[in-house]
Parts: sequence; C-alpha cells; structure tokens
Amino acid sequence: MSKFKVTFYPENKSVEVTKDTSILSAAISAGIYINSSCGGDGVCGRCKVLIKKGRVLSQSTGLLSEEEKDSGLRLACLTKVQGDAEVEIPQESRIDLQTAGGGYAELNPQVEEIQIKAWAGEKDFAYLPLTRKIYLELSPPGLDDKLSDLERIYRHLKQREKTPVLRTGISNIRGLGELLRSSDWKVTVTLVKRSGSTEITMIEPGNTSKRNFGFCFDIGTTTISGQLVDLNTKKQLGTKAAYNKQATFGSDIISRIIYAGKPEGMEKLHWAVTTGINEIIHGLTDGEKVDLNEVTSIACAGNTTMMHLLLRIAPTYLRREPYVPTANFLPVSRAIEAGIKINPHGILACSPGVASYVGGDVTAGILSCGLDEKKKLSLLIDIGTNGEIVLGNREFMVACAASAGPAFEGSGVTSGMRASAGAIEEVSIQPDSFDVSYRTIRDAKPRGICGSGYIDLLAALLKAGVLDKDGKIKALKHRRIRDGESGREFVIVFKDDSGWEADIVVNEADIDNLKRAKAAIYSGVSAMLRHMSLSLEDIEEIFIAGGFGTSLDIDSAVKIGLLPDLPKERFIFVGNSSLSGAQLMLLSDEAREKLVDIANKVTYFELSAEPAYMEEYMAALFFPHTDLSKFPSLKK
Amino acid sequence: MSKFKVTFYPENKSVEVTKDTSILSAAISAGIYINSSCGGDGVCGRCKVLIKKGRVLSQSTGLLSEEEKDSGLRLACLTKVQGDAEVEIPQESRIDLQTAGGGYAELNPQVEEIQIKAWAGEKDFAYLPLTRKIYLELSPPGLDDKLSDLERIYRHLKQREKTPVLRTGISNIRGLGELLRSSDWKVTVTLVKRSGSTEITMIEPGNTSKRNFGFCFDIGTTTISGQLVDLNTKKQLGTKAAYNKQATFGSDIISRIIYAGKPEGMEKLHWAVTTGINEIIHGLTDGEKVDLNEVTSIACAGNTTMMHLLLRIAPTYLRREPYVPTANFLPVSRAIEAGIKINPHGILACSPGVASYVGGDVTAGILSCGLDEKKKLSLLIDIGTNGEIVLGNREFMVACAASAGPAFEGSGVTSGMRASAGAIEEVSIQPDSFDVSYRTIRDAKPRGICGSGYIDLLAALLKAGVLDKDGKIKALKHRRIRDGESGREFVIVFKDDSGWEADIVVNEADIDNLKRAKAAIYSGVSAMLRHMSLSLEDIEEIFIAGGFGTSLDIDSAVKIGLLPDLPKERFIFVGNSSLSGAQLMLLSDEAREKLVDIANKVTYFELSAEPAYMEEYMAALFFPHTDLSKFPSLKK
Repeated sequence: MSKFKVTFYPENKSVEVTKDTSILSAAISAGIYINSSCGGDGVCGRCKVLIKKGRVLSQSTGLLSEEEKDSGLRLACLTKVQGDAEVEIPQESRIDLQTAGGGYAELNPQVEEIQIKAWAGEKDFAYLPLTRKIYLELSPPGLDDKLSDLERIYRHLKQREKTPVLRTGISNIRGLGELLRSSDWKVTVTLVKRSGSTEITMIEPGNTSKRNFGFCFDIGTTTISGQLVDLNTKKQLGTKAAYNKQATFGSDIISRIIYAGKPEGMEKLHWAVTTGINEIIHGLTDGEKVDLNEVTSIACAGNTTMMHLLLRIAPTYLRREPYVPTANFLPVSRAIEAGIKINPHGILACSPGVASYVGGDVTAGILSCGLDEKKKLSLLIDIGTNGEIVLGNREFMVACAASAGPAFEGSGVTSGMRASAGAIEEVSIQPDSFDVSYRTIRDAKPRGICGSGYIDLLAALLKAGVLDKDGKIKALKHRRIRDGESGREFVIVFKDDSGWEADIVVNEADIDNLKRAKAAIYSGVSAMLRHMSLSLEDIEEIFIAGGFGTSLDIDSAVKIGLLPDLPKERFIFVGNSSLSGAQLMLLSDEAREKLVDIANKVTYFELSAEPAYMEEYMAALFFPHTDLSKFPSLKK
Repeated sequence: MSKFKVTFYPENKSVEVTKDTSILSAAISAGIYINSSCGGDGVCGRCKVLIKKGRVLSQSTGLLSEEEKDSGLRLACLTKVQGDAEVEIPQESRIDLQTAGGGYAELNPQVEEIQIKAWAGEKDFAYLPLTRKIYLELSPPGLDDKLSDLERIYRHLKQREKTPVLRTGISNIRGLGELLRSSDWKVTVTLVKRSGSTEITMIEPGNTSKRNFGFCFDIGTTTISGQLVDLNTKKQLGTKAAYNKQATFGSDIISRIIYAGKPEGMEKLHWAVTTGINEIIHGLTDGEKVDLNEVTSIACAGNTTMMHLLLRIAPTYLRREPYVPTANFLPVSRAIEAGIKINPHGILACSPGVASYVGGDVTAGILSCGLDEKKKLSLLIDIGTNGEIVLGNREFMVACAASAGPAFEGSGVTSGMRASAGAIEEVSIQPDSFDVSYRTIRDAKPRGICGSGYIDLLAALLKAGVLDKDGKIKALKHRRIRDGESGREFVIVFKDDSGWEADIVVNEADIDNLKRAKAAIYSGVSAMLRHMSLSLEDIEEIFIAGGFGTSLDIDSAVKIGLLPDLPKERFIFVGNSSLSGAQLMLLSDEAREKLVDIANKVTYFELSAEPAYMEEYMAALFFPHTDLSKFPSLKK
C-alpha cells in the first residue's frame, strides 16, 4: 500500500501514513492533539487545519465558510491524504492551547506532609499505604532449620503482620533461591492487601525500603491530575495536571463511548489516557529524581467511563438503557495491565463506582470531604465536565450527574486554560471605566483564564453592567468591547500586556458555554432536592469541589447563579476532591475499606428521568436565574 | 553463522543446527530422545551413535572400544557438527526403548467412577473439584435493577456459594458487557478457590457446565503419569504414562539439577517435562474427544526437583547444604505459566512438599493411602527412582528418601520397560528344566520386563538355583544361560517367541542395578526404624506404592530382600499413590486442605546423615540379606 508523508507545522513534525488516512489520525500519530469535540464525526467543526501543500480529498461540509475554504482551511477529520502533504494547525484548533510547561501544570511544588483525614472528618484514617516495603534480615537455613526459602520469608513476616495469609506469584519465586543467597538473606519485600489476603508483589535484594513511592490520580474527562507521594514519609512531592489527550476523540463522555466502538477506537482512547498518565509520572519522577522502579503503586479515581477506558473494558453499555457499567468494583491489578509504566510489579487500585454516570471520582470525593460521616444533611458539588452532585449524610446518600461540559476547566472557551501559572483566577472590573484588575496564578504574566477566573469575570461583568441577565454583552462604546467572530467580545487583557500571543477575551459564545454549564449544575441541585422533598435550607454544609486553583470566590459563584444562595459560611471549597480521595486511598487501608462502604451506600439518581429537571434547567439559563426569589441576597 | 543439516536414522528426520552443536543437542531439537544418564557430560557412555556420513569433531573418550570407534560409533554428547551429517541412533541408545504406542502406555482404558477416599480412610472426602463450572441464568438489568454486569454475576453466585469473597481478573471483565448481552444473560462461570477466596477464572457464553475436565499428574524423575478426569461425573476417562523426556539430560535428580545450572539447561529441562505432559494431555483428550478448552484444571504431584523444574524455579540449592527448596508450598497458578496447554484460563495446583528430597509426591501418597489417619504405626514405601519411605500415624510422620535408581521402572536395565501392554509382570521358572512361564500385561506378546516382573524374575532365579546370593548367574550349561557383553545373562524369552526384535534377557549388570535399588529401599527402612528406636514388629500396616502394573508379588519382594519379612497380610499394594493423591486433590477441596496439613506435619529425616545407613546398605547388597535372621520365613 502506498505511504505518504504528512508534515505538520509549526512543529515541522512528519509522519508516514497510508492513502486515505484522515489528517486527524495522521496528527494523532504525530503526537499532535487537534481539538475534535465530536470525535472525528465531522459534526463539531473544531478541527480546522490549513492544507499548505499536497493532495488531499475533503468531504464537503457546512461547517466551513466559503472564505475559510478559499484560504485552504479544511476539517482534519473529513480530509483524507492522497499524497505527500504539508499541514498547518492553527492555535484555535489545538488542545493544550495555553498551557505552560509542555502541557503540564505544577499545582503544588512544595513538599508537604499529607493529613490522612477527610475535610469534615473527626479523626485521621489509620496509615497503611497501598504498597508497603518491609526490610527483612532473615536467618539463613541450617541443618536444624531447613524451612524453604519462601516459607522462611512468610515465617518472618507472620511474626510482624496482622493479616497472616500470605501469597505470591510464581514469578517472584523463580529466582528466589539465588536472590536470597546473593543478598546474604537481606531482602526487601513489597506487600499489598487484596481480596482480604496479603500478597508479596516483589522481592528485592538488600534494603530498598527507604524508597517507596506511589501516585494518586484523578482521571477526568478533560483533565488528568496526578500526584507523586512518598509512601514512607506521607509527603506529596509534586502534582501535575494535563488535559486528557482523549479530547481529540470527543470532548464529552458520550462521544468517547461512541468513539470506543469504532475500529481501533478503544485502543486509541486507551493509548491516549495512558500516555497522559505516563507523561505525568515521568515528569514528576524525573523532577524528584525518583526511579520508576521505586514507584510501587497507583491509586486512581475517575468517572466510570474513564475507568473502563483505562482498563480497556468496553464502555458500550454505559450509554445504552438501562445504563449499567461492566464493573463498579474493579480488582486490584498490575499497573502494567493498564499500560501504566512504573515498577513492573507495581499495582493499580481504582476507586469503586456507583453507576454509569456516578463513578469512582464521586466516591473518592465523598471520602475526602467526609460527607458520609456527617450527622446533618450535606451537599457535595463537583464542578467538572460531568458535574456530580451528592446529597446526604451518614444515614443515606443520593448522587446524580449533570452534564456541564468542560468550560469551567478552561476547555472549549476562547481564552480558557487550566488552573496553572499565568491563569487569571481573580478578576474585578470598575463599573464606569471598565478598568480590569486581575490576579494570576503564581503572579505570572496572564496567558488565559481558568475556571475560578471565569466565575469572577462573569460576576464582575454583571456588576459593571457590561453583561445582561441573558448573557449578552451590551453594545457599549468602549475599547474593550468589540464584535468578533463568535459574537461580541470583551477584552480582559490586551496582547501587549499579556504573556500570550493574542488578546485575552471572553465572547458571547464562551458566555453561552459557561451559562449552560452553571445552569446544569444549579438545576441538578434543585431537581435533586425537589425529588427528595428537601429544601436548600435543610443543608448544613456544602462542599464545593473542582479542578480550580487554590480558591474559588463563593460570592461570585452565587452571583452568576452557579451555586445556590445560602449563607457563605455553609460553603467549604475542597478543591480536587477526587484527587484528595485517591490520595487517602493510596495512604490508608481504612480509607480503602471506607470507599467500598461508600460505593455500596450511594444511590444513583437519574437526572434525565426527573420530569422537573428540564424545566429547572431552562429557568437557570439566566444570570443568576429567572426566578430571583431564589436569590434573596442578590435582590438587595 | 553457518548452518548444517543433520539427518537422523531410521526416522529420516532432519534438523538445521549451527556449527559445533553437539549431536545430542541436535537430536533433542529433532525430537529424538537419546539416553544420557550423565546429562551430556561424557561420563556415562550411553549416548552412542553411528556417524554414517558427514564431518563431525569428536572428543576422545575411553567409553568406546577401539572396535566401536572403528565402526563409526561416537558419543553424541562429545561429538560436534562441522558440516551436514547423517547419524544412525541404535536402539540401545534410545529412551522409550520398548514402549508401545509411541512412548505411551494406557493403564486404565476402562471408564470408572473415582472413590474420593484414602485406601485406609474411614470416610469419603467431600466432593468439590479444583475447578467448578456453574451455569447462570441472570436476570437482565432494568431501570429498577441497575447493578453492574460483574456485580450481577457476584450477586447470583453469592446466593449459592458458601465462600462469598469473589474476585476475578481484568481479562475476564474486559469484554463482559458484550458477552452477557450476546448470550442473553446465560453464561457459565468457572470457579477456583485460592488463598481462601473464590475466584472466577473464566466466563463463557451459554451453558458449558456439562463439559468440565481436569487432569491429575504424577511427575516422576523417570516416568510421567497422567489421568483425564470428568470433573462432573468423577469418572476417570483414561490414564497414560510416558518416560520423562528429561532423562536425556540425566537419569537421576542430581544430574538434572546440575544440568539445570548449565546455559539454557533450565529451559531444556522445562521444555522436556512440559512436552511430555502436553503429549499425554493431547493423547488422552484426543482419544476421548475432549476439547483442550474444556480442560480447566491440573493437579500435579511430584518430587521437589520435578516441581521446581515444572515451574521453572531454579533447583540449584536443592543439592547444596543445607538442602532447602525454594518453595514447598507452591501457589495455584495458571497452567500456561508452566507451559501446560489446556484452556488458557486453566489453572495448575501442585501438591505441597516437605523438603528437598521429600516432595509433593510423598504428601500425595500419604493422603491417598490415609497413613495420616491411622491410629497404629504404619509405613509407606514408594518404590521409584527416589525410593521414599514414610513412617508414622496420626500422631507423627517421618519421611526419608533412598536413592534407588530407575531399575524398578524398567529404565537402565537391558530388557526393561514400563508397566504397559506386553510387559512381563509375572515370572516363574522350573527348577531343573529352567522352563519359563510368564504373564504379560494385557496378555500381549512379550516386549520386555517391568518392575514387578523383575521382582518375580529375581525370586524365581534364586529359587531355581540360577542366581546366587551375591547376584551372580551360575555358570550352568543351559541354552538360556550364556555370556554377553554385560556379564553372564539368562534368556527369559527368545526372540522368536517375543514381540520384540531381540531376546528378552537379564544380565549381571541388570541384576546389579536391581540389587542396589532393593538394597537402598530396604536399608532406608531399617535405618529409619533404628533412628526412631522402633522395630519392624511395631508396624501394623505397610503400604507399597510404585508405578508397577496392577499387582506386585509381595512374597517375591520379600524373597529378594526388597521388603522386610513380615506377615503378608500387613502389606497393602496401593499402586501409584502419588497419582492417586493428585486425583483426590483434583476432586476434593477437603483433600487439598488435608494435603497442607500433611506437608506441615511430616518431619524430614536425612538418611545420609544417619551413621547406620551405609552399614545397613552394604549388608543389604545380597539376596535377600547378609543377615538371614532378619528373614526368618526364608530360613525354613
């Protein structure tokens, strides 16, 4: 079959592909991530590329204007290679658009000891990490002590361990005789508990017990966050976040599931997520001079689709009635079975899920905020691509998912970026002059706007009278207000003052995305309370979670109608609660057992089956809401 | 590197090898098994081959006579290929010399239901096979029952199972969603208990539960015996035995362990044993029209060296002081991890061992004869290449190994063969005429002599006055008595009356081998009793085990001094007790648990460390013994 060379610019990266390969696939092969919300179906129109040279065949589409077509723009998914070609990928068509550090963001560079404790918890969870290393100095066998090599290790361990059932795999036994003798009977064993018994996953010569590391991960639809933890000192050595490269195959869960059903779809999605995970692992271990062989375990939390794709479990039936997962409780497996590259004997544990749209990220979130321990009624709102909402206390828990989209994660909005250095996270606007003040993460030059920045920005635009309740930018005469390609726009930072190559703006299309996201969350909360015959006043504490930076302005979030109008002291911002839950999982066996209890206790509530939901949603498509009586503090 | 073609005759089988490959290695590559007791060290002189054509380079050796050298004979292990060559392998240099059916022997062609019971046991063991298939008709999920696919299976099983902890591997989960739906929620799960929890090893569409098969194996140093069992009906569908192809690399355990330490030695030994196992599996399943995918488990008993080699665990330290195994208790693993080809999800369980020279064959033997349940003192004597002896009862058990060699397995003796069709198993000789009467297994034309036949033969030769107490054949004038290459010999069947291409004989070298074997066993028993300050009279029951046919004449065995002179009613012939134990293991969880108890209870007794042993051995190198007072019944 004839092969053609496709070169992508500005990277100047080439890749050889067969005839009729789409430009989208070719880009993926070249390691370049093109935006494609619909997963290559030619529906979203986001994967525009410029054909500079060469023979291609494009399917006609209404998603490109005549001017765009004339200038050489094509949709990457509908364009097939017919000969050698050169392709330019515009910034607007890229994923990882404005992220510093090659797609990564360091969230917490400082070394901190982790409190193994829920936010609202009363006591610490007992420390017992997912994998433990124990250094053994065995007595060598003699004529009066002829116990076999393996049972000698077991005997030694049984004197120390509470869970005495010990087992190991053949691969650890094969060279054991030589290993014990060449290491003078001094070895380090790595232990993991699974299915109630303690297993030796690895036996190493000498004392390696001082070096034992793990990772916790939150695998989100849009963002993957990982943290390197020293399992001995409980210190977090670094955190990185990166966009989930699966976004190339669709921006939301549904499009990913559809893509997984295409030929090689599953393999590509699996490859994309593990590549992201491996890059984060590589980045953090490299920086901390941790050898990959010293990483012995991974604790993962993520929504049900993400967990299925990570383990290459077909997600097909997650989106078919009656929407059941293949498995909610996933067995502890070897990390390499999921393509994750740590120590070859390293293990992977996944947080258990509840239902197709309430996954292990939600149970991990409940664990980390301690909602399951609360006496009084509490609410957990996780603002992500799937906005998950949990209502309950130690007696009961109900959870639902509100499809919010990735806008609050800085994806799918013109100047959006993840909460990392240079992201605008706080904004205020002078009412008359429209002078803008802002604060960026780590006070770096502004490069874009992150979720908390957008919440502040919308609140500020409303307050300054730039934005009306419907989400339209008023046609005011000001140098910051102008018409753009996606409707009227407001310039927050002009190019010259920014650390970016364009003005940092928000336009009406962005505002529409943000409005839909906040409406989905708010109406989810309302519908759920209504279904349970409860009112907002019954709620004592509201945990707000999400991949924002270090803060989220609750006032602003109420002002735009994202959060319900309740006394400020009832809100607790808990950050990435899924990652925090995975962190607890990594460090405490008690926490891991609690997760199982939580997953068994939570009842799934199907929002779309609730007749009131659509009505609530439509009513919430205003700033803050069509029914102002719900926002009494704003009436003043 | 240049490659040369070596062709072996009379098979006319060719193989391509690199320059300097030994003829022995080339033969192994061609699938032809040459005798080599020393494992290719050029010491035993058994691997004589005839170089018919071609360039070879031979190391000089005193093990070939000048006549042999002149006629073109060389030792295969000391001869290296220098060009294309043609090699004839004489019958005497072959393994599987006289075995019917391509190296296999069908021992029990009839279909019998197995009694799950020890010989001396009072009650049956509870039936619960190693792997069980359970057919499930699941209720499909609905809007009011949204349990995940995997937990749906668990729920269903938990209603039926006593051991509720259930787990499975990722590979069984991956395609589960599709499998359940395409099979209309009717599936068969295969369960195995390991480390105290029940595991699903396999999920198949539809009802396959009616077809569930297992194999039990006794892996001996010289002989491998396997049996196909229907795990549902408890019927044994067939038994086959074959010589262990590892014999090419040495006839006893020590030479195998040494060979394992050579480059690629371990791989070759592992390959040899698994090839043998796979051939037996293939032969029996083929004959019974059982698909390999329907075979879900294997229970193996074997000595410690055999188990180490089967699982590719280095056996190095088994023969170095203080002689400890790498592991006595081997984890239940996948059969394919040991290279055994059954269902890819099929599992392998090995009987636990006690020490380097008292292995899982002994614990299985104890289980099958029920020695561990006896109130009074009992003895188990397993007559094999390693003669194992167990003394004890329900209070205590002591075991030792007496290196007997393979003579009683029909190996290393001129006309020896395994107990299979055509093997002479009973012999009597008229005192004056020296007329020989014999009975062969399945009344086939005689092809050789098996273990029980040799015992009878020696007793008959003594009785007829042909053999003196020292093991020499008297120089009597008779057509059956003549001088041969290996000393004087006695012809049992002349070529014309046999089903074989030569006279069936026994010579003084054979008798010497048999004498050493019987002396090793007898003196082992004596030394052990002496060490425990017990006498023969204290023993209530003696279980005699070994790979003989259906019978063994106890009188003859006493007459030649193999067994102690005790009343005949105290002896029980139990056949291959290791295989019977493996059979119980395959069919009963209770038996599997008992095996663990037995292995923990048995104390190893090192015969070579016992000062009296050598003295006892030397005294036993007579027929029946130098001290006739030990054989009062023969004095008459």
